[in-house]
Amino acid sequence: MNNFELYNPTRILFGKGMEYEVGKRVAKYSKKILLHYGQGSAERSGLLNIVRQSLREAGVEFIELGGVQPNPRASLVYKGIEICKKENIDFILAVGGGSAIDSSKAIAFGVPYDGDFFDFYSNKAVPKAALPVATVLTMPGAGSESSDSSVITNDELGTKTNCNDEMIRPVFSILNPEYTTTIPVYQTLCGVTDAISHVLERYFNNDTFEDVTDRMCEALVRSLMKYARLIIKDPENYDYRSEIMLACKFAHDNTVGIGRTQDWASHNLEHQLSALYDVPHGAGLAVITPAWMKYVYKTNVAKFIQFGVRVLDIDVNVGSDNDLDKMALAAIEKFEAFLNEIGMPTRLSQLCDCKAGDIEKMADLCVDFYGDPIGGFQKLHRDDMIAIFQLAE
Amino acid sequence: MNNFELYNPTRILFGKGMEYEVGKRVAKYSKKILLHYGQGSAERSGLLNIVRQSLREAGVEFIELGGVQPNPRASLVYKGIEICKKENIDFILAVGGGSAIDSSKAIAFGVPYDGDFFDFYSNKAVPKAALPVATVLTMPGAGSESSDSSVITNDELGTKTNCNDEMIRPVFSILNPEYTTTIPVYQTLCGVTDAISHVLERYFNNDTFEDVTDRMCEALVRSLMKYARLIIKDPENYDYRSEIMLACKFAHDNTVGIGRTQDWASHNLEHQLSALYDVPHGAGLAVITPAWMKYVYKTNVAKFIQFGVRVLDIDVNVGSDNDLDKMALAAIEKFEAFLNEIGMPTRLSQLCDCKAGDIEKMADLCVDFYGDPIGGFQKLHRDDMIAIFQLAE
Repeated sequence: MNNFELYNPTRILFGKGMEYEVGKRVAKYSKKILLHYGQGSAERSGLLNIVRQSLREAGVEFIELGGVQPNPRASLVYKGIEICKKENIDFILAVGGGSAIDSSKAIAFGVPYDGDFFDFYSNKAVPKAALPVATVLTMPGAGSESSDSSVITNDELGTKTNCNDEMIRPVFSILNPEYTTTIPVYQTLCGVTDAISHVLERYFNNDTFEDVTDRMCEALVRSLMKYARLIIKDPENYDYRSEIMLACKFAHDNTVGIGRTQDWASHNLEHQLSALYDVPHGAGLAVITPAWMKYVYKTNVAKFIQFGVRVLDIDVNVGSDNDLDKMALAAIEKFEAFLNEIGMPTRLSQLCDCKAGDIEKMADLCVDFYGDPIGGFQKLHRDDMIAIFQLAE
Repeated sequence: MNNFELYNPTRILFGKGMEYEVGKRVAKYSKKILLHYGQGSAERSGLLNIVRQSLREAGVEFIELGGVQPNPRASLVYKGIEICKKENIDFILAVGGGSAIDSSKAIAFGVPYDGDFFDFYSNKAVPKAALPVATVLTMPGAGSESSDSSVITNDELGTKTNCNDEMIRPVFSILNPEYTTTIPVYQTLCGVTDAISHVLERYFNNDTFEDVTDRMCEALVRSLMKYARLIIKDPENYDYRSEIMLACKFAHDNTVGIGRTQDWASHNLEHQLSALYDVPHGAGLAVITPAWMKYVYKTNVAKFIQFGVRVLDIDVNVGSDNDLDKMALAAIEKFEAFLNEIGMPTRLSQLCDCKAGDIEKMADLCVDFYGDPIGGFQKLHRDDMIAIFQLAE
């Protein structure tokens, strides 16, 4: 286990009716806020009206900025920063999924900063301050409701990059699974796939003695896989939705990542996919992750066997001919089969129309923003990135 | 899953050398503190001198109060409160194990309160404020380094009771496993047994749909059992000590308890044992827990089977005669055998000299302080408490 520092002060309010707490909780921090949300689902569900009413009852003034798109854009962030500066707003409330939250976090970084907020997303500056952010989560998966991370797509540059800083963990997040029961199944499972990836990016490494967090990782992936399958059969089930919502939080709040060398190559590569083709992040990960696994598993065959045995119940007897690679490959195969079973694409061709030169372009963008090499499990250079994209074709 | 609220802002600084951070970190909160510790082990290891030096370098004035005993006493808490009030101290740094930390928390409750701090430990008042507390942990098990709980023994009344409040979670805790490598094995395993109990008090209930936290509980107990066995063979192993230290933190910071009905009957009963005989809390739990299990398992046989299969690898074939009770009992038997294997007592007679009338006395004290009935898994009245103590004889 490596030395680590963990600080996660996000207060979680989980369960039915918790959204009625929002005004009272916000009022502890601010009297004038930006209410930031997406493209209409929170309006249609009635949630936004509950939030507005609760804010009014608590005497909190709010200015609204809706319209956050999936893969949230820098252009709207600039608009949000402008409003906050003009209106002397000192708190941001996100209502929605990872996109609304990540956009809120970017605004929160940008308001106390004189330069271009995107400096923080292009390694040109490190944030020194941020407005407090709170969230009412409607779409689990990204884990942004209690993570220190925010991902923004720069519509001008055609890139998607992240900024991580502990000061941007939300001060509180309200998670009522009832609002997730109407999310379409495919979108739900994109979120689950993202959450599984958040765990696996932390799970696969070459460290020793990480038994506690290894087992917690395995616990989360098993639960996510179980409820991914169940939600297909009964999408409105509150209990299934609750398990998914809670697992997605733990998958990315770094509870299971502490003291560990982390990987993040699959996320780095996928960000280029969703920047170029505007595909759902989770679907992109379903394509990249198995290809990454096939490319790197020989670096630590034992870890893939552990994953297979503990999470996927692979037959240990597959190793009866002493072929450990075969066991590792059986794990990867079973994981890919699971992704297909829940309707995720696992090939580029199922996801987007990948033209000649696109793969090289994505590798170049990945190098530009994340450097060369990427990856904590196995160092991946530009050629390796291209090879992984090709394995995913 | 039940609705829940989770707030755990304790910053964890984990690993080698982290104790040198203490002065700098304390200085963010205070210029004058109470340095509170135990009976000499932190002096002998050199840790206290490192802490003193670090505080001086950071310009933090400190007044010392040592001498905290295992099962920390109210009498020393009164002394600490008096010092803090007289010296205008606004921050408490605990160096030691659960006893030093719990004593610090009690002082922290007492300083801003005009009445008797023990009101909070006897259900006569609820704390409205507390000084901030930080810790340098030297003895894992109690989990007090990031829990909201404190347990105090009232030497005059002969009772041991707790006060829980989220405001008493330490602002930071430094966990360097190196300082735990010299803890005697028996004492270490008392701590591990306490931590296992902290998980099981949250694990056993009759709720449904707690899959995520069930699996996380199981992950922790498996890890604790594994490293309990290994530490006996190689007590100075840093990696083993790290796994134990981390698991003990998660066992009691309520990460795995959220949304769950919790039990706590075994703890309630054990507190009477360690108050009466001054035995190690973990050893008392090793005696009480299997007896509790045998007494209550029929309330939810399925949960005991799950525990047996997932944590203890009991042979599922034991149920081939469709005797589910037999599987549940196999789990309990295997758990008790594990406790014996690591040298824990599992009978009252191995632990203390229990005289006629003592059991009734302990049941009466338990009723006085925790009420009648106790327990979330199965409601236990005075007669049940007596029956459990008798089963442990």
